[in-house]
Amino acid sequence: MAQDAFTKRLVAAAQEVERTLDRLLKPELSPGEQARPARLLAAMRYSALDGGKRLRPFLLIESAALFGAQGEGVLRAACALEMVHCYSLIHDDLPAMDDDDLRRGRPTNHRAFDEATAILAGDSLLTYAFDVMADAATHPDAQVRCELTLGLARAAGLGGMAGGQMLDLAAEASGEPLSREQIALLQAMKTGALLRFAAEAGAIYGGAGAQERAALVAYGRALGQAFQIADDILDAEGDEAAMGKRVAKDAGRNKGTLVGALGLAAARALRDDLAQQAVDALAPFGARGGVLAAAARFTAQRAH
Amino acid sequence: MAQDAFTKRLVAAAQEVERTLDRLLKPELSPGEQARPARLLAAMRYSALDGGKRLRPFLLIESAALFGAQGEGVLRAACALEMVHCYSLIHDDLPAMDDDDLRRGRPTNHRAFDEATAILAGDSLLTYAFDVMADAATHPDAQVRCELTLGLARAAGLGGMAGGQMLDLAAEASGEPLSREQIALLQAMKTGALLRFAAEAGAIYGGAGAQERAALVAYGRALGQAFQIADDILDAEGDEAAMGKRVAKDAGRNKGTLVGALGLAAARALRDDLAQQAVDALAPFGARGGVLAAAARFTAQRAH
Repeated sequence: MAQDAFTKRLVAAAQEVERTLDRLLKPELSPGEQARPARLLAAMRYSALDGGKRLRPFLLIESAALFGAQGEGVLRAACALEMVHCYSLIHDDLPAMDDDDLRRGRPTNHRAFDEATAILAGDSLLTYAFDVMADAATHPDAQVRCELTLGLARAAGLGGMAGGQMLDLAAEASGEPLSREQIALLQAMKTGALLRFAAEAGAIYGGAGAQERAALVAYGRALGQAFQIADDILDAEGDEAAMGKRVAKDAGRNKGTLVGALGLAAARALRDDLAQQAVDALAPFGARGGVLAAAARFTAQRAH
Repeated sequence: MAQDAFTKRLVAAAQEVERTLDRLLKPELSPGEQARPARLLAAMRYSALDGGKRLRPFLLIESAALFGAQGEGVLRAACALEMVHCYSLIHDDLPAMDDDDLRRGRPTNHRAFDEATAILAGDSLLTYAFDVMADAATHPDAQVRCELTLGLARAAGLGGMAGGQMLDLAAEASGEPLSREQIALLQAMKTGALLRFAAEAGAIYGGAGAQERAALVAYGRALGQAFQIADDILDAEGDEAAMGKRVAKDAGRNKGTLVGALGLAAARALRDDLAQQAVDALAPFGARGGVLAAAARFTAQRAH
C-alpha cells in the first residue's frame, strides 16, 4: 500500500475514533451512574481527545477488518484500548513519575488541571475502558467481550504496561545501566504489550482462528519493538519542535534504550529488521495484509 | 443472627478472602504476562493484604450464598471487588489527594514505598481486578462475567467512586459548605457505589431474578448510606487509637458530612433508620437474609 493511501486511511480512522471517544465522554449518564462531575469529565476529555495518531486503535480496527468485522462495536473496542493508553500518559507525566510539563505540545494533564484531578482522570479513563469493553454494545458475544477485557487488563497491568513503567522508574532510581535483555523486557512491557494487544484484539474481535491470531500476535510484537526503537532514535536525534516535548531527556536519566546499548546505526538496522519481521508475519493474509504492512513501515519510519 | 455468630462468620470470610488475595498476588505469571516486578507486587500486596474487615467481599459472598453460589469463583469475584477498594485507598492517601501518612495504623502505601510506586500499585490493583473478574475461573458463564465487570467498572468510575472523590476534593477546594443533597450525592458515589455493587454483584453472580436483585440493590444502597454516616459519626467522636488514623480531620477541611449538616443526634437516628431500611429490604429472603441483616446492623454500630 502506497504511503499516501495509508496516511489517508490512518487519518480517517483517527477521526472515527475521535468521534466515538467524544460520544463516550459526554455528560449523559450510563445506567447505574449517579453524576459525571464536570471537572473530572473535562480532564478526561482533555487527554483523550487530543488528536493523536491513534495508532493502537488503528491496529485493532485493521486487524478486525481482516475478518470482516467493522462498525460501531469495533470502534468502541478501539476506544477502550485508546483510553488505557491515554490514562498511562497522564500518570506517566505526573510529578512523582516522569514529571513532564508538555505532551504533544500542550500542557500535561496535571499542568492544565491539577495533580489530584490528573490522578483521578487517569483512574477514570482506565476504569471506563473496562466499562466500554464489557458492554454488550461492543460485541454481541459475551465470550468475546470477556476475552477482550481480560487481554486488555493483562496487557495493561502489573505483568505488562504498568509493570514496565515500574521497571523503568527502578532503573532510573538505581543508576545502574541495564543489560540489553533488561531493556528489551522493559520495553516489551511498557510500550510493547499494548501494541501487541492492539493487533491481537482485532483477531479476538473478528473471531480469528488460532493460526491467524498467532500471526497477528507476532506482527504486533515485532511492530511494538520497532515502535519503541524508532521512538528512542527520534529522542536521540530529534528536536523539540518536532516532538512537542522535551527531548534528549532519556540520556540524562538513565532511561535504558537500545540506542544507548547498540549505537544509532545498529539501532536503525534493528528497527528496520523488526518492521520487516512484522510485515513477514502477515504472510497468511496475502494481499489483505497490505494496510497492516504499511502500518509497520510507517511506525518504523515516522518522523515524530 | 446473634452478634457473636455474625462476627465469627465475618472473620472466617475475611480469612478466605485474604488467602485468595495472597494466591492471586504471587510472582507466578498468568499467561500473557511478561514479568511481575518485585517492588510493584510488594506494594500491591502491602495494601491488599492488610487484614481489613473485608466488608465488601463479605457482602458479595453472602449475597451470592442466598442463591446457593459459593466456592473459589465467588471468592475471586469478591477479591476483584476488594482490589478496587484497596486501589482507591492508596490513591486517596496520596499527597496530592488527602495526604495521609497512616492507614489502619500502618504507614500509607506512598510512605512505605514512594509516591510513584504507590500510584502504580493502585493502577495495577485496579487493572488486575478486571483481569480477575473477566477470567473464566471466576464464573463459567461469560455473560455473568461481563455483567460483573461492567457493574464493577461503573461503580468505581467517573459516575461512581472516582467521581465521588472528585466531588469531595472540589468541595474542599471551594470552601463552600455543601447542601444536604450535595453531601448525599458525594457519599452515594464515593463510598456508596461500591457497597451497593457488592450486594448486587452477589445477585448477578448467583443468577438472581429481577426482584431479588432489586432487593439486594436497595439493601446495598441503604447499607452504604448507613456506613458513611457511621464513619462520619466515628470521625466526629472517635479517638486516634481506635481509628488508626488522624481523626476529626474532616471538620478542619470542609469535608461535607451529614453529621455537620444535621448534628450528632439526628445523624445517629438517620444511621439507625438506614440500617433498618437495609434490613427491611431483605424481606423477600425471609430467614435466609439473617446474615446480611446482621451485616447492616454491624455496619451501623461498629466502633471502628
